Formats: sequence, structure tokens, C-alpha cells
Amino acid sequence: MIDDVRKKNPLIHCITNEVVTNFTANGLLAVGAAPVMTGNHEEVEEMAQIADGLLLNTGTLTPYQYEAMRLAGRAANESGTPVVLDPVAVGATSYRTRVVKDLLQEVTPDVIRGNGGEIAALIGMHSQMHGVEGQSDQAAETLAKEAAKVLGTTVCVTGEVDAISDGTRTYQIKNGHEWLARVVGTGCLLGAVILAYIASGQEKGIVQASAAGLAQYGVASEEAFARAKEDGVGTFQQRFLDALSFMNSTDGERKSHIVEP
Amino acid sequence: MIDDVRKKNPLIHCITNEVVTNFTANGLLAVGAAPVMTGNHEEVEEMAQIADGLLLNTGTLTPYQYEAMRLAGRAANESGTPVVLDPVAVGATSYRTRVVKDLLQEVTPDVIRGNGGEIAALIGMHSQMHGVEGQSDQAAETLAKEAAKVLGTTVCVTGEVDAISDGTRTYQIKNGHEWLARVVGTGCLLGAVILAYIASGQEKGIVQASAAGLAQYGVASEEAFARAKEDGVGTFQQRFLDALSFMNSTDGERKSHIVEP
Amino acid sequence: MIDDVRKKNPLIHCITNEVVTNFTANGLLAVGAAPVMTGNHEEVEEMAQIADGLLLNTGTLTPYQYEAMRLAGRAANESGTPVVLDPVAVGATSYRTRVVKDLLQEVTPDVIRGNGGEIAALIGMHSQMHGVEGQSDQAAETLAKEAAKVLGTTVCVTGEVDAISDGTRTYQIKNGHEWLARVVGTGCLLGAVILAYIASGQEKGIVQASAAGLAQYGVASEEAFARAKEDGVGTFQQRFLDALSFMNSTDGERKSHIVEP
Repeated sequence: MIDDVRKKNPLIHCITNEVVTNFTANGLLAVGAAPVMTGNHEEVEEMAQIADGLLLNTGTLTPYQYEAMRLAGRAANESGTPVVLDPVAVGATSYRTRVVKDLLQEVTPDVIRGNGGEIAALIGMHSQMHGVEGQSDQAAETLAKEAAKVLGTTVCVTGEVDAISDGTRTYQIKNGHEWLARVVGTGCLLGAVILAYIASGQEKGIVQASAAGLAQYGVASEEAFARAKEDGVGTFQQRFLDALSFMNSTDGERKSHIVEP
Repeated sequence: MIDDVRKKNPLIHCITNEVVTNFTANGLLAVGAAPVMTGNHEEVEEMAQIADGLLLNTGTLTPYQYEAMRLAGRAANESGTPVVLDPVAVGATSYRTRVVKDLLQEVTPDVIRGNGGEIAALIGMHSQMHGVEGQSDQAAETLAKEAAKVLGTTVCVTGEVDAISDGTRTYQIKNGHEWLARVVGTGCLLGAVILAYIASGQEKGIVQASAAGLAQYGVASEEAFARAKEDGVGTFQQRFLDALSFMNSTDGERKSHIVEP
Repeated sequence: MIDDVRKKNPLIHCITNEVVTNFTANGLLAVGAAPVMTGNHEEVEEMAQIADGLLLNTGTLTPYQYEAMRLAGRAANESGTPVVLDPVAVGATSYRTRVVKDLLQEVTPDVIRGNGGEIAALIGMHSQMHGVEGQSDQAAETLAKEAAKVLGTTVCVTGEVDAISDGTRTYQIKNGHEWLARVVGTGCLLGAVILAYIASGQEKGIVQASAAGLAQYGVASEEAFARAKEDGVGTFQQRFLDALSFMNSTDGERKSHIVEP
């Protein structure tokens, strides 16, 4: 499917955290999408409507940025621009939990992506957070499905095994490498890449396009590890962008490991 | 001329977009300049006057940052610090077009650098944007010269072929590699590097010092591609900084391809 | 000691400059710490109390960020979370000098880390700044000791030779490579790494844990240079993260060169 992304060259509007802006933009360029980053209140609505996808990532939220997300998110919802929400570290402070829930009153995301702890916190499963973080395959799948029903949207839970569900259809994605967790922003970039796949594969529907993006992202990490394992995580980051930039659909799909339980 | 940059070690004050701060600072260090990044209203005027060059890049402009650019730009104009304006994505939203035009009422840049679409938007050539983006050599040269006359300053149009003009003298620069467009911030860094060359080659004048900077920047990208083409764009970004850091004047000038039509 | 960092996986809360957020987070991950970056007034106090260390870096300070540092710093002091202050470019503008001194009235750092010029400016040795920047081993050691007495805390002076002192015990650290100065943010990351060592080696005390961190950071730069010297500074940055990610205590301590004069 990555060939479709390269052909479409979708414009992905990112309102994201300040730690990962550069890596997100370079990752989007590597898969063939076009990044734009603005949170200026005077243009976010216009940009969200022009764009083929809108990413809202709460990693370093400020009051000004929250309002930008609200404005852009509503404009995207109105114009039909797909929205991915990445509720970074929701549950870590009381503020984050409250503000993400506020945002969900204002904006309807097409996909919510988080790790097990974040998705659990979002649906009030606080007490089980530690268990979820060290999740089994079963737990990710069950959590994604349960959260999709509670939140009324597609939910993607990433971890050792990724799972995505719209409450009806659920997929496990068994690609990826643990060194992804040793480079900051690989989860954040994933949210943006999912948008690029959704925007470029509308005939597949959100769950299947997202699953394809998740799997090919994971394949790139496997290839990057194979070329970086003797060197370390600095080289892994570079090889990961290399792998994204050289992947094609034939190779990416052959190595994808998507399971419908 | 890069040897002069290394000798002068010019202090380049950047008020730039949040996506490219790190890459810009590392690129400036690689060519031998000293970066400083601050947009704090309480010090931007003092810093712009101490600095050897001031970069104003509107890629992720906020209201606070606009005021910082206005203050720093006026202080730079008063003290004779050269100013480069990079009007990122002007024309993409109505806000960007308006705010860049407002800034030009307050600050007089020594060089404006943009791609064909941005420079065309700046002088009101909206309807021809697509034609300009897929520009011929002729188009870049004509656009730079026309924009220089309209805007009353030196204008640099970058694309497949770069052109720079002060309205009287015009140069084409035929260095560079298309992978530059696959790494975010290579255009933004270029604006900062042009300042480093202007600050270190004042006896040459702005157009010729800028042209030298453009050419040697392009040479570095050619060398980076030669060492990264089997690997991908992650490696290209690294090799590009490598090439900037190891370039010397003899080699850089020998490979420069500057044409005065 | 780096094995202790990997075992503890300390949570380091960074309120730092916008140029180095990504590099700081990746560097912390490489040594085995967990980075969190937030300056939001509604959560900084809660985060600083949860965290194992708080970094305050004034490189691109805004009024909003100053207040975040004040709130987080006071909360950290109250709860006993170690605080490192990196007063970037203090002395460069009158604003920076004033605001860092204001911050020191509100927050008590456990370690202040700066280059010779910054530490000299902080204790009013303005006139000697140039002499201190081109410092001899003797100067760094003397400056660290003097500043520790004046400021009433542990002071780390980095440069060709690093020195750290609490006013009573003073160490010279003779590791490191000059290319560290050619990558932006290596000083900023060092402040965060010192926190990771302090948090993971409380039985050693602040000065000795910090000295161990300084030395092993320097060892990583020596290893990175050995693998990057034929390539350039882009490769050096990558190899430096590689070296941090693969270092172990046995190797790191064997190569450490810490001198107690």
C-alpha cells in the first residue's frame, strides 16, 4: 500500500509535541507524504480543511496548543478530514487525563492510538495499568476492542504486539522491533503514518488501511534492526528512516504479519 | 569561501520554525558558524544587534513569535545586521500571506529565500503557482529578477535550478540534489547558511556571497547523495552534515557551478 | 555506574530549550533513563514530584517557560527531587543574566552545569570571560570550586577539561572529545545525564555520581570520534548515541579518567 501513499502524496497536518516535530516530518517525507506543522489559531482551521489528515498529539500540550487542537479538530470533522488522536501519557498526571477527555467532547477522532497504559487510562481502567503495559497478545486485542466500543471509534493499541479494532473487526499486527521503544517519537510518527495510509487507501476503510500502515511500519523497524544491531540505537534511527524511504508495496506486504483472530 | 566562514565563525541569530531548530543549529556548526536561537521579546533586540546575521523563518509562526521577528528585524535593520527572510508556505493559507506582507512593512530583509511557489505568492502571481513549482531554469531566473524588482531586495528562488538576483545581477546555481527535498529543513538551513556566507564575505557583496553559499550547499548535497544512495534518506541527512563539516574552499569552489546568463 | 542507570530507569523531567528536546530525549533513552518533557503550568508540579530528576535549561526561555521552571523547581525542592540547572548563555544578554539570578532566588539546584564563561558570568566574573573560555585545567578546577562556594551548591564547569566541585571536594574529568562542541545540545544532554546518574547512585552522593556521569559521557564521545573521524560530524552525532546505548559499567569505568587534585 505504500506505493499508494507515494502516489497520493497526502498532506498531513500535524499538531504534535515539540520533541518529535523533526522526526515526524522526516518520517512522513520518507513514506511519501507531505507534512505541514502549524498550531496558529489564525490558520489551523483552513489548514485542517485543506489537509488529507490531521494528527493531534498531546505530548507537550500548552493552553494555546489545546485551543489549536480544538479548532483544527472541529474543522477537520466538519470537512471530513480524517483525524488521529495520540493521547501521549494520558493518565500520567491528572491534568492530562482531564484535558484529553475534554478534547474528546469537542473532536471526534477516526483513530485513537496509544500504548496499553494510555488506552486503559482513557477508559478508566487505571488500576490495571501495570498489567496492561506488560501486556500479552490477548490483552492488546481485548483492550483495543473494548476501548473501541466504549469510545465509539477505531482504537489502536501498540506494544509488543499491536492490535486495532473498530469494535467489530479486530486485527493483531505481529511486526515491529523492540528498539522502536528506544528512539523517541516512533509512536508519535506512527500516528502520522497511519493517517497517510488512511488518506491513501480510502477504498479499504479505516481499520484495514491502518493495519496495513502498522504492519509496514513494523517491517521497516525489523529491517532497520538487521542493519543497526551491531552499532546501536543512533544508527537504528537512521536505518529506520532509510527503510521507510526505500520500502515498496510488494516487499512491505509480503513481510506484513496481520492476523484476524 | 567556506574557509572564510570557519575563520569568521559568525554568530547567526535564528528565529525559526520549531521543526528545524536542531538541524539548523547543527548545519550552522558544520559550516563553521555559531548558532543562537531565541525569540524572547526581552532579549531579541540585543541579540540581533550582537549577531552577524538574523534569520526570520515563518514556518510555525505564532503571535508571540511574530512580535519577536518584528522587534529583532527592526533592531537588525538599525544596527546593520544582515537579515534573511524565509517566508515558508506563504500563499498556503490566507493568514500566512497577510502576515508575511505585514512583516515586510516593518522589516527590510537583505535576502528573501523561497521556492518558486512562495516567491510567486509574495508578488501576487497566485494563478501561476503550479507552473512555477515545476519550473524551468528560465522561470526561476525570471522570477528571481522580477521579484527582486518588485520587492526591492535580493531574492533567491530555489528549486531544480536555483537563481538569485538583486534586480540587476542575476545568477543561476546548478548544484544540488533532489534528495534535499526529502529531508525536512534543508531549505530552512540554507537561509541560515546564506547569512553565514554574507557575514563572512562582505567584500564580495550580498548577491555573490549568497551565490557562493548556494553553490557550496549544493555541492555538499551531491557528495552526500554519492555516499547515501544505496542506503536511503536517513543516511543522506547524516552524510549531508558530514559533507558540510569537511568541505573546504578549494574543493567547494572547484565543484561550484554558477552561471551568469 | 551506567548499569545502575539502566536498572533504575529514572524518570527525568526536562524543561529545556526547543533546539535540543529530541536529542536530549534520545540521549536519555540511550543511557537507560526515561525522559518526560512538559512545561505546562497545570502539570509541572505534579510531574516534578513524580520524577527522579528535574532539568532546568534556559536556552530558549520564554515568559511562560520561566514560570514553569519556577513552579517545577519549587515542587522538586519540596519533594526532594534532584534539580540540575543549565544556565545556557547566561551573560550573553542582560536579560539572561537577570532571569537566571531571579530563578536562583526561587529554586535551589543540586548541580549547576555550564561552560567556563557561563559559570564566570553567574558569579560576576564578567571581565574574565574570554580568559575563562580558553581555560586551562587549573582555571576550570579553580572556577568550579570558587563558584560552588559563592553559589552554595555543586558546580560543574565543562570545557577541554571538566571540573566539578561542591566547594569541599573537587574532581577533574579528563575524558571527552572536542567534536562534542560541534554537535548542538551535547552540553544540554549532559545536564540530563548527570541527573540520571545522581538518581541512580544516591549512595555515592551528588559530586561522585555526577563525576562518574561526566566521565562516562566523555568516554562515549571518544568512542564515537574513533568511529566517525573519517566521516564528519553528522556521523559523530549518530555514533555518540550508539556509544551511549552500548556502554556498560565495566568498560565505562575502566576508561574513565577522574582526578582528585
